[in-house]
Amino acid sequence: MARAVRAARAEKRPPRQRFEVDARRAQLLSLGLEAFGSRSYDDVSIDDIATQAGISKGLLYHYFTTKRGFYVEVVRDAARQLVERTQTPPDLPPLARLSVAIDAYLSFVEERALAYVALMRGQTNDPDVRAVVDATRDEFIDRLIGGLPNGVTPRQRLVLVGWIGFVEASSLAWLEHGGVDRQGLHEILSSALLALVQT
Amino acid sequence: MARAVRAARAEKRPPRQRFEVDARRAQLLSLGLEAFGSRSYDDVSIDDIATQAGISKGLLYHYFTTKRGFYVEVVRDAARQLVERTQTPPDLPPLARLSVAIDAYLSFVEERALAYVALMRGQTNDPDVRAVVDATRDEFIDRLIGGLPNGVTPRQRLVLVGWIGFVEASSLAWLEHGGVDRQGLHEILSSALLALVQT
Repeated sequence: MARAVRAARAEKRPPRQRFEVDARRAQLLSLGLEAFGSRSYDDVSIDDIATQAGISKGLLYHYFTTKRGFYVEVVRDAARQLVERTQTPPDLPPLARLSVAIDAYLSFVEERALAYVALMRGQTNDPDVRAVVDATRDEFIDRLIGGLPNGVTPRQRLVLVGWIGFVEASSLAWLEHGGVDRQGLHEILSSALLALVQT
Repeated sequence: MARAVRAARAEKRPPRQRFEVDARRAQLLSLGLEAFGSRSYDDVSIDDIATQAGISKGLLYHYFTTKRGFYVEVVRDAARQLVERTQTPPDLPPLARLSVAIDAYLSFVEERALAYVALMRGQTNDPDVRAVVDATRDEFIDRLIGGLPNGVTPRQRLVLVGWIGFVEASSLAWLEHGGVDRQGLHEILSSALLALVQT
């Protein structure tokens, strides 16, 4: 509702001002990602983020209303980036699409590690954050099912959900402890999926 | 530190009083589990829990100091239950131990669904909660590695970490949406592990 009102207001602004609003919002989301990705929610200071952005705390709250609301938008933005980057050309064969998608996923994990950790290690008992994370997983599962000719049984769906859990757990452990190079993790993830769909 | 002081004090109490302290603590942890397992952290009211236990809010804070501290102990207690229930007789062959452990895990998931959700959907960006959840996963991975004759390579360790993620994701989805019966989920989890260790 508040967002709809803000969006309507933004529409009435001249283009340059709308650009500035979008740029400011993007800047705040980027600072928020760094903060929430590296510290616990309680340890993130809205004052510090406003200072880093060179704006008042009041202006930050103008954009995001509450600390909680800001946090949810930061997670939503990280999820949007991950979902966009892992889109694949629909004309590729399924296995090639899988490989391209895993590659894009791991480049996000590697290059945007803080965003990935913020998304996966987030406050998943917050209903809004949980909804964002669940929607991201559902999008990946729908893409996997879309690549299969005959849809899936409930059992196969649980296996795909499990594989998404496999990808997240091994990617987080890889970020933290390494163990293999990125190509090695890519191979682990694709071999796992191929082995699992045959069980 | 505070806990060490409390423990030292408890030691000096006569046995009956110590029993009452332990029983009260267990009651509060059980009420906490129900609350944190079914609502978001911010929506859990310490006042309500104290009222349900028939004690003052001050007495609850005597046991757990802060809401955050109470929450961490609730998660720790759920983790302890899960780890204890899934212990298996060391004289069984590895595959039989795996089956017994998965069975015990799924009976926890089914019978103590709120505890399981509280543990898995917890505020995993809180360092103390994260430490409890990570220690639980490490315990399971150490048990799996203990069942293998030659230890594991870094690659195999990542696969086992991934399988724990597979178990958690499919168990949560099963609690929420069903799809197969418990025996069916048991079969999915064990087939997945056997397929994955051969990749």
